[in-house]
Amino acid sequence: QFVTCAATVLPHSPVNFLDQTQHKGLAVAVFGVLLCKLWGLLVSPNPLPFTTDAKNKQNWVILGVFYYPALYYPLLACGTLHNKVGYVLGSLLSWTHFGVLVWQKIDCPKTPLIHKYYSLFSSLPQIACLAFLSFQYPLLLFKGFKSSETADATEDLNSSYYGDYVKKMLSEKKSRNISTSSADKPKLSQRVRDAVKSCTVVFPFRFPLKLAISCVVSFITLYQMGLVLISLVVPTIQTARYGVDEDIANVLAGFQIILSPDKREVVRIVVYYMWCVEVCYISAMTLSSLVNLVLLMHSMVLHRSNLKGLYRGDIFNVYNCQRSLRASRPALVCWMGYTSFTAAHICIGMIIQTFVFFLCLLITVFLVIIPILQRQNLIVFHILWSMPFWLMILLAVLFQHITARFCFIKKTAGTHDLNNRGNLFLLTYLLFPVNVLIGVLLALWRLIITALFNIVHMGRLDISLLNRNVEAFDPAYRCYAHYLKIEVSQSHPVMKAFCGMLLQSAGQESKAAQRSRDAEEGIQLVQQEKKQSKLSGAKRARRRWQLLYTLVNNPSLVGTRKHFQAAESFLNGSFNRKNKDSKKEAEAAAGN
Amino acid sequence: QFVTCAATVLPHSPVNFLDQTQHKGLAVAVFGVLLCKLWGLLVSPNPLPFTTDAKNKQNWVILGVFYYPALYYPLLACGTLHNKVGYVLGSLLSWTHFGVLVWQKIDCPKTPLIHKYYSLFSSLPQIACLAFLSFQYPLLLFKGFKSSETADATEDLNSSYYGDYVKKMLSEKKSRNISTSSADKPKLSQRVRDAVKSCTVVFPFRFPLKLAISCVVSFITLYQMGLVLISLVVPTIQTARYGVDEDIANVLAGFQIILSPDKREVVRIVVYYMWCVEVCYISAMTLSSLVNLVLLMHSMVLHRSNLKGLYRGDIFNVYNCQRSLRASRPALVCWMGYTSFTAAHICIGMIIQTFVFFLCLLITVFLVIIPILQRQNLIVFHILWSMPFWLMILLAVLFQHITARFCFIKKTAGTHDLNNRGNLFLLTYLLFPVNVLIGVLLALWRLIITALFNIVHMGRLDISLLNRNVEAFDPAYRCYAHYLKIEVSQSHPVMKAFCGMLLQSAGQESKAAQRSRDAEEGIQLVQQEKKQSKLSGAKRARRRWQLLYTLVNNPSLVGTRKHFQAAESFLNGSFNRKNKDSKKEAEAAAGN
Repeated sequence: QFVTCAATVLPHSPVNFLDQTQHKGLAVAVFGVLLCKLWGLLVSPNPLPFTTDAKNKQNWVILGVFYYPALYYPLLACGTLHNKVGYVLGSLLSWTHFGVLVWQKIDCPKTPLIHKYYSLFSSLPQIACLAFLSFQYPLLLFKGFKSSETADATEDLNSSYYGDYVKKMLSEKKSRNISTSSADKPKLSQRVRDAVKSCTVVFPFRFPLKLAISCVVSFITLYQMGLVLISLVVPTIQTARYGVDEDIANVLAGFQIILSPDKREVVRIVVYYMWCVEVCYISAMTLSSLVNLVLLMHSMVLHRSNLKGLYRGDIFNVYNCQRSLRASRPALVCWMGYTSFTAAHICIGMIIQTFVFFLCLLITVFLVIIPILQRQNLIVFHILWSMPFWLMILLAVLFQHITARFCFIKKTAGTHDLNNRGNLFLLTYLLFPVNVLIGVLLALWRLIITALFNIVHMGRLDISLLNRNVEAFDPAYRCYAHYLKIEVSQSHPVMKAFCGMLLQSAGQESKAAQRSRDAEEGIQLVQQEKKQSKLSGAKRARRRWQLLYTLVNNPSLVGTRKHFQAAESFLNGSFNRKNKDSKKEAEAAAGN
Repeated sequence: QFVTCAATVLPHSPVNFLDQTQHKGLAVAVFGVLLCKLWGLLVSPNPLPFTTDAKNKQNWVILGVFYYPALYYPLLACGTLHNKVGYVLGSLLSWTHFGVLVWQKIDCPKTPLIHKYYSLFSSLPQIACLAFLSFQYPLLLFKGFKSSETADATEDLNSSYYGDYVKKMLSEKKSRNISTSSADKPKLSQRVRDAVKSCTVVFPFRFPLKLAISCVVSFITLYQMGLVLISLVVPTIQTARYGVDEDIANVLAGFQIILSPDKREVVRIVVYYMWCVEVCYISAMTLSSLVNLVLLMHSMVLHRSNLKGLYRGDIFNVYNCQRSLRASRPALVCWMGYTSFTAAHICIGMIIQTFVFFLCLLITVFLVIIPILQRQNLIVFHILWSMPFWLMILLAVLFQHITARFCFIKKTAGTHDLNNRGNLFLLTYLLFPVNVLIGVLLALWRLIITALFNIVHMGRLDISLLNRNVEAFDPAYRCYAHYLKIEVSQSHPVMKAFCGMLLQSAGQESKAAQRSRDAEEGIQLVQQEKKQSKLSGAKRARRRWQLLYTLVNNPSLVGTRKHFQAAESFLNGSFNRKNKDSKKEAEAAAGN
């Protein structure tokens, strides 16, 4: 871990744009622009600006998928150079892109694509992102003039965030211990309060850059998907609604449907029903967007708690199994794709959600609400009320609950125990057939609950839709789990605080010369010094014990030890037992 | 716990039929008979034998739901009396029921219901259960004559099973510890071997009676459901297939479908297609039955491991959260309904599975297999092969995996670390749009995987279909969790071994008189003796420490302490930390 904390590429290289040391806003905005372009690429019949060959669209899309990232790369690269030339170039580029796009949209705001204003609305996020870039680059240039010193790669390590994180962690230790002991089974009100608190809590937790990008990308996807869903369907329904005339009565009569003898009345009813369908569709779409928005916020809270947990070493709590937090091939592939996968999952999730919600709303409106309003065709209610069957089910359930409460449980001196076992057995036997019928309802309820939960959470990668024992078979969750691994192994705040302190101490010894060295060299220096100094036997033994203690309590460090392979089998045994313990002590030791 | 282990009703009461001390086979068989009758009740137009009023079927069903348990209750009660009169009555009753049913089926084997032989096949499990009862009662009577002493309520406690369980537990302790340390991440082959081993392992673990009943009830439900699914659909398709003549060509031509100019050829094709549909349906039904059968067996293995885990105190592993294992109202209601709910869930699960598998098979056969066989209409393959899109996706995935493996991971001295971070960032950015497209495929794959998993596991109550954090919202799993609570709190083998030993020691002191007392009195005696004897201060302190140690390590005992309420908040804190530890030591201490 200590080796990787320092940037192994040159800090001012134009490819270092996803590092924690970089300006977050620039990368986020460029990814946003790229996503909007990809969207246009897939929707528009002419994917690329320099061709109108709609026949080979597929090939042009494939070309476009690689062309656009290259087109916008300079926008990103200019920000990573950390000098005035870069900022000037960035300003010019972003102004150009912004100007061209705005001019295009003003020149022809209406396109025949999907809906006349679709193209305009669709490019709004892109315009916003480019406007942000056009504003940010001059600002950075101005700041660069003012401070008149080039930004440093160690800027990130010198910032007070990591030190504050360690201090905060140490100070909150006691209060946390108390809260876990009393909050074994938090009540609903407590949990709601915790959730609200966790959303609004002020302690500045710094999200990894990739996560910030994912969040913005998700937000833009939500907007674009909502726009497509609305503009594909609603104008069509509206056109159809305005076009309804008295011929519809003849068409319906052809299908043996006679809504009313008066043709004008038929038109009124059909228009009313179509309006209902439209309202249902818009409500379903809005509901789906809101659900995704809320889940996105909830997702961010979960990301934070997962990251904090993994920093602390609570691997078992986050993953529900023991894993080593080191870079591996699948983990790296998942890390690369994470942002994109988030966007894709939100797309598919929104389509499915809108469809399902639309169906549910249609059923509710046409089988429940309209019959109630018109006081006719109350089919559902007739089915429900005409049946003594439901009464029997209800009575059986009530009877079981009441007898269980008052006859079969004996409370003596704070203990709950079974009473009247014989009658309990008799009741179990007698109610066996009724319970089978109740079970059928329960199974249907289970079906609905499960389907609804999974459909609602379809767009979230950070929770698995499968049972806890087979979580890893959910490809999206597997990707998230791998992504977290890489993220945590590369940006542990305590490790960064440690590196920052090492750099500072090295800096105090040999002021300016040492200051610009990166952390990597600093650590090597310390290690060399350590080797050269002769340690007495007692001291060496004590250091070994301290090392062992640190490693046992901080398993994510084990992967970076030389003799890792040999030590693994020995240490795993102890992890299993200790995985619920907080590893803060060792972390704190590493931090100081 | 110690209080409840002894039967608090008279052991020979006719209502004590679900106790562990009773003969399992009798209860299982009677529940089986009842289930078959319930099935007939729902399917047949004349639910009750003494009425042919098909108009008020619903009311008759409701009556039947309570009539049949009462009808078969004597069969169950005769077995619990544990004397010769009971066995004689039971033999007579079971012979009567068996004779009447067999005579009915021989008299008129064909009924117009669903299919001519449906009724006969449907009553086979019922006949089997009644035959078992007719054989078992005389056998019990014969045994009663031979041993010439009435069965004892303490028979169960005196049996060697509980003692063997404790001995086995103590002896296997060391080997288990070693296995957990090396089996952190078991490989697939190891897991398969473990699964096979766990199915065939010889150590006689005694399932609770309710679970044995559930297993047999599930099995009968599987049979009945399969029978209904087959006899509802297959004869209809067959009749339709035999009835196809040359008119079908005209009908199809009416829908603009012309399969062939020759009418006889059209008939041949239509018959072939209908045969395919029939084969698909039967395959889907068979597949669904097999899947449910395998899951039923897997379920039993999981039940055993869950029960063993809870006996050991591994509450966190089983429930994924901390719970107190004491009787409560919802737990008791769930316990009462568990067997019935299992049957109902298997029903619904089989219907959905058959439907989904049928659809999947139809799509496979008509879009993949038949086109391949006939070498025409290869629509799916044309779509797949004509697209450079798929090639691009494949290449992008391969490229990412290869670069991740060979360019971005540095292996030095057993550690894995990131290398070439700049190029990694660049690749991530450039492949962002392609990854969105890959993500869409991944999301569809997630959808399929999740739906398929949940549909396949629909019939199982013992696993939740929801994410691990919201498991309890799955009503079926919630019911299972509650059921396990009651089962474990009422039949802990170590507790039973302890009670058995107490009874034996009491028996040695005052032979015959004490022997027939139940465990309850035995424990009260010991407690009274304890109070009377004067303990020195040191002894009392030591005992208190031992008590505290036992309670801390064996949380399921806490619920039965008098001052439970006050102690709860204090002890919860320690549980959180220790919940992964095995509690065997304390159990063993309680056992000896």
